[in-house]
Amino acid sequence: MPNDQPGRAEIELTAVLHALSDPQRLRIVKRLAADDEPRACGSFDLEVSKSTCTHHFRVLREAGVIEQWREGTSKLSALRRDDLDARFPGLLEAVLAPSAATA
Amino acid sequence: MPNDQPGRAEIELTAVLHALSDPQRLRIVKRLAADDEPRACGSFDLEVSKSTCTHHFRVLREAGVIEQWREGTSKLSALRRDDLDARFPGLLEAVLAPSAATA
Repeated sequence: MPNDQPGRAEIELTAVLHALSDPQRLRIVKRLAADDEPRACGSFDLEVSKSTCTHHFRVLREAGVIEQWREGTSKLSALRRDDLDARFPGLLEAVLAPSAATA
Repeated sequence: MPNDQPGRAEIELTAVLHALSDPQRLRIVKRLAADDEPRACGSFDLEVSKSTCTHHFRVLREAGVIEQWREGTSKLSALRRDDLDARFPGLLEAVLAPSAATA
């Protein structure tokens, strides 16, 4: 895994909570969770500039919430669900719960 | 409830996640959860200045994580566990889990 993606044991709770505390980033994570498959960055229709979008993905990646890799000319992103569930059982489930959707 | 403490329905997930994303604030919340009773601000031995401490408590209060009130000359704080559990089932439990303690 690249240096800027922490291994499972290195994922820190406060970093994950911070990464999820932004509405745009939370939307990205919900989308990745719903699709359950890797997506290209450009496929997220976020109403922000490309640089802001890149920033959000970097925060998520560095916190260990998503992993990213290149495939040809695309950069794909996927939720690290197994790693997060192992490290902080129940956290992702609580954050992604329908009851939390309107928050 | 004072104006700067949101009602249960007004508690926002991203605000709660942000409030919990700071190591000092997370420590305060864990302490309140462990004690399960109101505590005076001064009883938390945080290694920060009084103004930083006040800031942390305000962030927690405004996010709906804790409630604060005056009793005589003391300002007491308590975790809004029922409100948080009702609003975001499982979230607090996941954040306070022993497995998350070292994170």
